[in-house]
Formats: sequence, structure tokens, C-alpha cells
Amino acid sequence: MPVRRFPENPVVTPAMVRPSRPDFEVLCAFNTAVTTYRGETILLMRVAERPISTGNTVKIPVLDTDGPVAQVKLMELSRLDTSLDFSDSRLVRGKDLFLLTSISHLRIARSKDGRHFTVDDKPAIFPSRASEAWGIEDPRITQIGDTYYIAYKSVCSDGISVSLATTKDFVTYAYHGIIFCPENLDVCIFPEKIGGRYAALTRPVPKMIGSPNMWVAYSPDMKNWGDHHFLMGVRKGEWDNGRIGGGAIPIKTERGWLQIYHGATEKDVYCLGTVLLDLENPHKIIARAKKPLLVPEAPYETTGFFPNVVFTCGATVEGDRVNIYYGAADCVTAAAEVSIKEMLNDLH
Amino acid sequence: MPVRRFPENPVVTPAMVRPSRPDFEVLCAFNTAVTTYRGETILLMRVAERPISTGNTVKIPVLDTDGPVAQVKLMELSRLDTSLDFSDSRLVRGKDLFLLTSISHLRIARSKDGRHFTVDDKPAIFPSRASEAWGIEDPRITQIGDTYYIAYKSVCSDGISVSLATTKDFVTYAYHGIIFCPENLDVCIFPEKIGGRYAALTRPVPKMIGSPNMWVAYSPDMKNWGDHHFLMGVRKGEWDNGRIGGGAIPIKTERGWLQIYHGATEKDVYCLGTVLLDLENPHKIIARAKKPLLVPEAPYETTGFFPNVVFTCGATVEGDRVNIYYGAADCVTAAAEVSIKEMLNDLH
Repeated sequence: MPVRRFPENPVVTPAMVRPSRPDFEVLCAFNTAVTTYRGETILLMRVAERPISTGNTVKIPVLDTDGPVAQVKLMELSRLDTSLDFSDSRLVRGKDLFLLTSISHLRIARSKDGRHFTVDDKPAIFPSRASEAWGIEDPRITQIGDTYYIAYKSVCSDGISVSLATTKDFVTYAYHGIIFCPENLDVCIFPEKIGGRYAALTRPVPKMIGSPNMWVAYSPDMKNWGDHHFLMGVRKGEWDNGRIGGGAIPIKTERGWLQIYHGATEKDVYCLGTVLLDLENPHKIIARAKKPLLVPEAPYETTGFFPNVVFTCGATVEGDRVNIYYGAADCVTAAAEVSIKEMLNDLH
Repeated sequence: MPVRRFPENPVVTPAMVRPSRPDFEVLCAFNTAVTTYRGETILLMRVAERPISTGNTVKIPVLDTDGPVAQVKLMELSRLDTSLDFSDSRLVRGKDLFLLTSISHLRIARSKDGRHFTVDDKPAIFPSRASEAWGIEDPRITQIGDTYYIAYKSVCSDGISVSLATTKDFVTYAYHGIIFCPENLDVCIFPEKIGGRYAALTRPVPKMIGSPNMWVAYSPDMKNWGDHHFLMGVRKGEWDNGRIGGGAIPIKTERGWLQIYHGATEKDVYCLGTVLLDLENPHKIIARAKKPLLVPEAPYETTGFFPNVVFTCGATVEGDRVNIYYGAADCVTAAAEVSIKEMLNDLH
């Protein structure tokens, strides 16, 4: 199936993003929620930053939520400390110690044509509570009426959960708590009520039994969720044998809900794929494409912070044309155009 | 603190339980929800059974949910099959294979005095859907008005989740779906609304970040849950350093919600402990006792299917006296009496 990458790719790079404070550097601008607002394409990106470290000092960002206002404080570690392991640049390990070297917030990039973006100078949503102490990541936006529902990953030492915020203007945001407790991520809320209830794709990560698979949950009010159903699992021997999770907000078609999801091999090569879900019972699968829709091949997908990753959190739809925005190599934001008809041809 | 074990212990043994079918044997009758109904103490026990196997054949119970009525079918494996590992009697492992050798259902035991029990001949709730294919386990009952809410663990190859059933008469049961997706267990619903909402202790088990800790969730309707809060974690160097989870339904006292929870060491010695939670905001801790309330010491606690376990799913309360019913050594049901005042003395 022809997926046409934008010639402008990557459409957003870390260099385009001003750090949230002068002693920080931006590592990644990726995994972006997507919507349209007042004629513009809005990307609500995950921006990962880290304190600028020099010499043998490694500065670790830690959100301090004890005071009246949460703020990022810097913990200083020494590379010469042999009790610590700095071999993975994303984290520091020690006995009874596990810290991330960066912290993510959510930032808006705006575009009139969906191809050329300007990045806001300041964060849209910055981590501000204990459940977000290690950052907020990988949002998805679902517009229903004039409300934009933002489901995002909250990370702290207690686990990875999914929180909900809403906005009507992308200026002020209301917080509605953790809607899925650990370990859950990749939550995509459907863009309309189905059978009188809201619905969402979820990606619980069980420890003892089960794989990182996709589930569906339902809600009367967006804030409280129940009636969980297993949707689909990883496929042995296929490109999505390691883990799968929701990607873009499901697209309504005559034949069913078209979902562009991500799958990874056990060796962490992330591709995008498609599945078609029943219109009335979206926890029922109509068809799941065997081949991936998008495979990391472009240089910005195969080289970067974490190579060989394409990972979507959103798309825009205009008639038959879908513009998928996706994080590439866990570093930049890219986009590709694809036809709904052509995707449906693979789903039978 | 003096915890007085019942001289009648164990109050229920597997020998008192008739198998659900003649070719099965009962292994364990334990981890029992507790309530009172029409003047009787009702234990809704987890009964674990396995097909009687002879010679080198090992029969594995598998719930078949493809037909109009779910039924347990038997898969036959050979002990001589060198590709399979039978070393843990609870399960069979192979390449791409993981099976439980037993399947659990829920069964009622009744008593006029809380000490001498008669076990119903037939299951109260038997696994009947795909999410319960490997059994249903460790229920908790919360009575609100004339409705008994039963939160229980559903186990299948997709994971361990928590489902909700209700009854008003312990004869017919209504099913309300999975209320917490994998991996979650040990859900204890508080016995009244708090600030206009239902509340529950949950025990998510995260894979990547976090430990098997206790959380609190809220609900407008018992079926949909949100506003998850981290409650408390395992304690390094203590008796509850490996995992913790809700035990009995929280008991309302003047000073707060008194919760008898279980904790296990990293080496799987399970004890009971106490914590006092804020009456208005039960995700806030007032005090957590340092020492355990009950430690496996009696022969039926230190010897059995899985030795050195005391694990409660419920208690009865009469004035200051609490009768804690608990699974002992993952095999039998025992009980012990304790005073609320004395428990509160340890919580300051």
C-alpha cells in the first residue's frame, strides 16, 4: 500500500523547540497528539528535555511536588560513582535506584498547511503532580463537540498510568485525574459515543500472565471506565510479535472503525499497522491487516535517539486522505499521507 | 497484639467440599469473601479443583467458551513428554505453553455461629466466559443496602483482571463485566459512598516501573472506575517488602477506615497487617502499623499447598470484635478473633 512520506520530513525537530528553561536542552519532539483547531493543524507533542550536564557531573531532573507549586529540581550524580550504571543514556541504574535522565512535557506546534510548523515557546502542559514526577508523554486528542479530551501517559516511580485533561481553547486545561492505573498507556478515546457510551482503546501491560496487548474499555462520562474487553494480541512470527498499542484516534468508515496502531517486534522495531473494528461493538475485530502500513526505512526513522521506530499518536482526516503524524526514531516528528480506501483494501 | 486463632481451625478444609464433578478432586478451599446474610455467616470461598489424573497422564482443565454454554474440557498431556516441565505442581510449562493444572470457582460455606460451617454442594459462581477461562479467585463481598457486590479475580491467558457480580439472595448472580483490566487483583470495595462516590482498594501489578502496591479508585456507579490514586507501597526491609494488597473490606472506625491487608516478603511469606485511612479521603494514610497483625505460625499455616501464607479476603465485625477469615497455606480456611481497639492502638 502506498504510504507517501511528506517531502518536508521531519516536520518538527528538537532544534525547532525552545527548552522550557535555559539550563535544559531538548532531546526529542515526537509522539504527538493531532487535531485541528480554528483552521490550524495542532500537534500536541511530547518534548523530552534534560539538564545540560558537563564534565563528570550528570544532572537528573526530579519533579518536587512537596511545595505549593511543583518544580523541577536537579539531582547531581557523578559519572565516577562506580555504584551507578550510566551505560543507557536514557536512565541511571543503581542498587535500589532507577532514574530517568530526561523529563517530558507537552508542547504545541501549529500549522496552516499541516506541513510547516511553528512551535510554541512555552509548554502547553507541564508535569505538575506526584503521578507525573518523571514526565508526561505520548498524548492523544479526541475532539467531541467543542471539547478536546487529552489522554496522556503519566510516569513516576509508582508506575505508568493514563491521565485525562480537557481543553476548549488550547490555552487553559482542566485535569480529571488518572483514568487508568498502572500499567497502562496508548489510550485512544473514540471520537463519538458508541451505544450511549464513550469507548477507548487501552494497552495494559500485565506482569505475570499475558502480553502487552490491546483492550477496549467503556465509560459513561470519560472519567470513569469499566466493561473492559480484550481486543487483540501480539502475533507470533509477525512484525507485531512483541507489543501492540493504540495509535491514532479511530477513524469512522462505512465498514467499521479504522485504527492505525503500532506494533513492535521483540527486538523493538516499531511499525504501524491497521485493524478494522465493529462499528457497534468496537471490541470486536472485523479484519486485521497482515502486513504493516509503515515500516521504518527513511533515515530519520532508522537513526536517532532510539532507532527503527515509527509511532503514531494521531492523524488528520480530510475525505479519503489521512495525514498520519508520527514519532520517528523517538526523536523527531514526521508525517505521511495515505488513502482510507487503500487501507480498507487490506482489511478483508 | 493478641490475635486469637479459633480453636476450631481450620474451619473449612478441602475434604468438606464436594467436587463440582465426579472426575475432579478438590485441592483447596480458601481465600474467602465474608459477609452475613439472614443471620448466617456466609463464606464465598475460592475452591480450586483439578481433574483426577492417573499414571503418566496429566489432565488439564480448560474452559471452552466457544459453544452456547461454557464447559470445562480436559486436555491430556503426558509426563513423559520431555518438552514439558511438570516440576511445579500448580502449572505446566513448555515452549509457548503455560497452563494451570487446576481451576477455581466460588462456593458458599454457611454457619450459624461463625465457627462450624456447612459447604454448599454446588458452586455459587463457576467460570463461564473467556476472561475466566483459567478460573475465578479471591472474591471480596461488600454489602451496601440489600445488594452484595462481589469483586473477584478473573484469570485467563490474556491476564488477571477484576470482575464484578452482584446478588441479593446468594441464589442468583448478575454479572457486570471486568471493572479493572490486567493486571489487577485484591480489589476491596468500601462499604459506603465516600464524598458521594464509591471507593475501592486496588492492587495493580505494573511490569516496567513500580511494585505490586496498593492504590485507591473511585466510582459513581460501581461499574466504572477512575480518579486512581497511589495509596501505599511495599516497605524495604520489612515483612511487607515483596508485595501488598487489600484484604478485608475496610472497617469504619471513629479514627478512620481500618484496613487489614496482606503483605508478603520477596520470598513469599504472607502475613496480615493493618493501616488506617482517612475517612473522607481514603487514599490518604493516617497510620500504618509497623509490625504484622498475623504471621503464619500454626501448622495449617506453615504446611499445605503453598506454605507460610495467611491471606484474608474478609471479616465479620460485631462491636469491637473482628473475626478475620483467612486462607492458610493456600489450602484451608482458618479464622482468628481480634479487637478493633487493640488494632487501633498500633496505629498512631
